[in-house]
Formats: sequence, C-alpha cells, structure tokens
Amino acid sequence: MSDTDLTHVRRMWDQDKASAALGIELLDLAVETSEQGRRRGRARTRMTITEAMVNGHDIAHGGYVFTLADSTFALACNATGRTTVAASGEITYLLPSRLDDVLVATAVERVTYGRSGITDVTVCRATDNAVVAEFRGHSRTVRQSS
Amino acid sequence: MSDTDLTHVRRMWDQDKASAALGIELLDLAVETSEQGRRRGRARTRMTITEAMVNGHDIAHGGYVFTLADSTFALACNATGRTTVAASGEITYLLPSRLDDVLVATAVERVTYGRSGITDVTVCRATDNAVVAEFRGHSRTVRQSS
Amino acid sequence: MSDTDLTHVRRMWDQDKASAALGIELLDLAVETSEQGRRRGRARTRMTITEAMVNGHDIAHGGYVFTLADSTFALACNATGRTTVAASGEITYLLPSRLDDVLVATAVERVTYGRSGITDVTVCRATDNAVVAEFRGHSRTVRQSS
Amino acid sequence: MSDTDLTHVRRMWDQDKASAALGIELLDLAVETSEQGRRRGRARTRMTITEAMVNGHDIAHGGYVFTLADSTFALACNATGRTTVAASGEITYLLPSRLDDVLVATAVERVTYGRSGITDVTVCRATDNAVVAEFRGHSRTVRQSS
Repeated sequence: MSDTDLTHVRRMWDQDKASAALGIELLDLAVETSEQGRRRGRARTRMTITEAMVNGHDIAHGGYVFTLADSTFALACNATGRTTVAASGEITYLLPSRLDDVLVATAVERVTYGRSGITDVTVCRATDNAVVAEFRGHSRTVRQSS
Repeated sequence: MSDTDLTHVRRMWDQDKASAALGIELLDLAVETSEQGRRRGRARTRMTITEAMVNGHDIAHGGYVFTLADSTFALACNATGRTTVAASGEITYLLPSRLDDVLVATAVERVTYGRSGITDVTVCRATDNAVVAEFRGHSRTVRQSS
Repeated sequence: MSDTDLTHVRRMWDQDKASAALGIELLDLAVETSEQGRRRGRARTRMTITEAMVNGHDIAHGGYVFTLADSTFALACNATGRTTVAASGEITYLLPSRLDDVLVATAVERVTYGRSGITDVTVCRATDNAVVAEFRGHSRTVRQSS
Repeated sequence: MSDTDLTHVRRMWDQDKASAALGIELLDLAVETSEQGRRRGRARTRMTITEAMVNGHDIAHGGYVFTLADSTFALACNATGRTTVAASGEITYLLPSRLDDVLVATAVERVTYGRSGITDVTVCRATDNAVVAEFRGHSRTVRQSS
C-alpha cells in the first residue's frame, strides 16, 4: 500500500457528487494483503435512509441500497491504484430497510484477473448488524493510474 | 387483463415517492399474452439524468440507472395483480450515461413460476435508442391481491 | 448472414467433444435481424437426462442443465462470425428435471457492445414446454474470425 | 455443530451419482462459526479435467467447472442440517482449465435469511492455486431435517 493509491481514490471520491448528495460517508479505506498474498482494496461507508428514499409505506426503494453498495464497491476496487469502472453488479435483498435506518456497507475485493475484478459488498443495519443486502460487483480497469 | 390489475399497480406507483423524487415518469403499463399463451406484465418509464445523479465528470452514477430499471421492473411484475417484491437484481452497464441524457426503460416479465418470477429490463438512451444497460430482476409474490 | 459465419460455428461445434459426449444435439442455428435492425445469433439444442446425470432420487444435477444452456449460449454468440468465449453465466432453476426428460434449450443473443455480449437461454421440457431454467450468459470476443 | 448434521449431508453426497460419475471427491466438510457468531457450512472438493470434459482444443467445457462448484455449494449449504436446493447460481470464468488439470473448489456459506441462503465458491487450479472461477449460489430450504 502506498499513499499515492489512496490519494487517487480519495480524489475520485471527492468528485463523486452523486454519492455526496445521498449523504454517503466514507468510514474506512485501505489496501490489505489476503491470506493468499494478494493485495486487495477494502472500503466501509455509511448512509441514512431519508424521506426521499422511501415509498408510501416507509420502506426504502431498493435502488438506494444498491447505490450505497455500488459506491462502496467503486471505492474498494479503485483503492489499489488502478482506475476501474463497474461492468456489472448483482444485489440480493435480505431485509427491507426503513426510514431513518442507518446502513453500513463493507466492500472487499475478492479477486482480480487481467483487467477484471470481483468485489463483494455486505450492507448491514447499524443498530443490530443484521444483513440487509449482499452485492457482488464486476469491475474493469480502464487505464493504469500514473 | 382487467382494470382491477392496473388499478392496483397504479396505486402502488402513486405511493412510490422515491421514484417520483427522481423524476421517473410512467409511459406505458400493460398486461399482454406471450406467444406461449402466458400473461405477462410490461412497463415503460423515462428519467432524465440530473446534476444530482452525476459525478465530477458528468457521468451518471450507475446506481441511478439501476434505480430506474428497478422501478420499471416493479411496475411490470405487479401489473398482473399479484403483490410482488424484488428478491434480487443484476445490471450490466453497456454505455455511460451523461448529464441531461434522457433514459427510457422497458420491462417485460419473462417467466413466473410458483411465487417467483423473472423480469428483464432494457435501458436505452432516448436520442439514438442505444442500449445503456441490461437488467434482470427476480421477484417474489408476498400475497395475492384481493 | 453469410455461409462463412455458420461454417465457422459449425466447425467449433464439431470439435466440442464435451457437448457431444452428453448427447447434446444441434437442432437449429441462425443469424436473424432484430426489430431494432441488429444482427443476432440464435440456436436451439436438445439433450436427454440420462442415468449419469441424476442423483439417488432421479433428479438431474443442476450442473447438466447449466451445461446444456452454456453450450447453446456458445452456439448463438459465435453464430455471427466472431470467436467468443463465455465470461460468466447465471442460471435460475424453475423446475427439477428427471431421468429420461428431454430438454430443449433456445438461445438468443440479446445485445452486443464492443467486444462484449449478452445472450439469454430458456430451457424447456419437451413434453409440455414447461420452463425448467432461465440462463443469461455474458460473452467476450477473443478475436475476429477471418 | 452436531454429528447428526454431517450424517445428513454425507448421506446426500453418497446418493449423488452425478457428482461421483465426474470423479468429484469430497475433501473436507464442516460447520464453523463466523466472526459475527453465525453458523455456516463449509466444503472442499476436488475434480480432475478428463477427456470427456474438453473440446477439440483440450480446454474444459465451462459446464464442468460450474458442476464442480454447484456440487460443492450443495455440500456447504446442507451441512448445517437443513435440506436445501439450489435456486440459482452465477459463475465467472477467470482462467481456462485444461486436460488433466486438478481443480479444487472451496465453498463457504456467506449468509442465511429465512429459508434462503447465499454461498460463495472459489475454484482453484491445484498446482499453483490460481483462481479459475468464482461462483455464487442462492439456496432455498425445502424442509427441516428431523
């Protein structure tokens, strides 16, 4: 892990007005070494479900839970210094989220191969750590950062 | 297709404040009969990419494209009168969307089995009909509507 | 559609010993033009569930249903003359398959973009046309065929 | 973890003629407790790529790699004593497998919720531990084992 790497991804995050507008906060950002000796990005974020994110029954629109996971995915897979974009993402909903729920998303790069990578994100409810959604994202490197 | 069915789903749509806040418009909603004689829901919606949806490079956050697809998916799989929720969704991004792009999403129920169903959604750019994203959603019926 | 295209994919199919060993038969292979004017591959195959494919309760191992879908996917996305490989595949099981069931798989390329493509495959039981599984595959072109 | 649990899943494995016919060996089977205190199944298996599994270029048909992952997924999500079936599975191919390659698949239940569960499987090449494929399966409990 070098400071350069996190400078790159922190700059990317500062420019992400869409994530900021939703109140997504960056809690942690790191590059760690897996048991197999591979470097992988890791990120943790937090978002509160607001009035704008719910329907008439105060249940959050799944799209906002996806968006939180997707933002956290982008942080993790850019942390190692490569500039990557999301190629695809899959989310499974386990529990509904409600107005005022605080959600914490944790993303860990699972594997990279060539210009591709897979990152898993777990979204939990802060109060009891119950899993709200599981997300798997596929990333693609667009260019090497300098 | 009965009027009752569409009354049910239109009421659901009217209560979806989250979709309304993003400016998602419902263009079409119908129940059709497939070549195999199966009834299936169909929906078409439209959304414009706004300042709040883009990052510093005026590229839309993928979460908003997902949210558009997810809202359209919900319309299609509730159109046949059953009350369903999203169990999971997968999106593949083909082209980036930019500030002021108008996106049109078309959802068609592909198959239902027991309480489960699969719905495909294609998101296109209105100007040239280029495909921006393909989405496949899995739904689950929570109760039969009366 | 040109004869060259189908020569290429038919040669690939003749060399696929794995599909042949499972008794997968090629029923149809074509390149058609979609409503949007795009060329897309289409393929249809058939396989019978044998003793070797079932467990102790005469239910087919899902892996064989996936393999049938995957082979049909490869035929459809190579039909337009590009040499492609499977990047990923997702299968949803709707009904169990049993010993002696005859399964028919129909694959249609949904969209291509750059070197990538998405192909959908439906697997049906021949006797009553009931949908056994839905598959979505992501392909990637490795080189242009000459 | 109780012995009863593993008796149940071992009996299921002994009846799985399809996995046996492919030469899939069960290496490890266990129920462990996650960092969050949740019980989860874990399984490890091994399979060698044979002549019957390859095409004319000695590259394994992806369907056999999927089948290995799917069998290992079934072991892990039945290990905790519930009788589960695969609802869906997604595989991403990272490296081609070749004739005589020995593949090792490791499955770990990620989360369970109600009657549903998510299990991740990594398939590696035994010689160098390179990741060949990543698989995520969704399971569904059909009845509680007695």
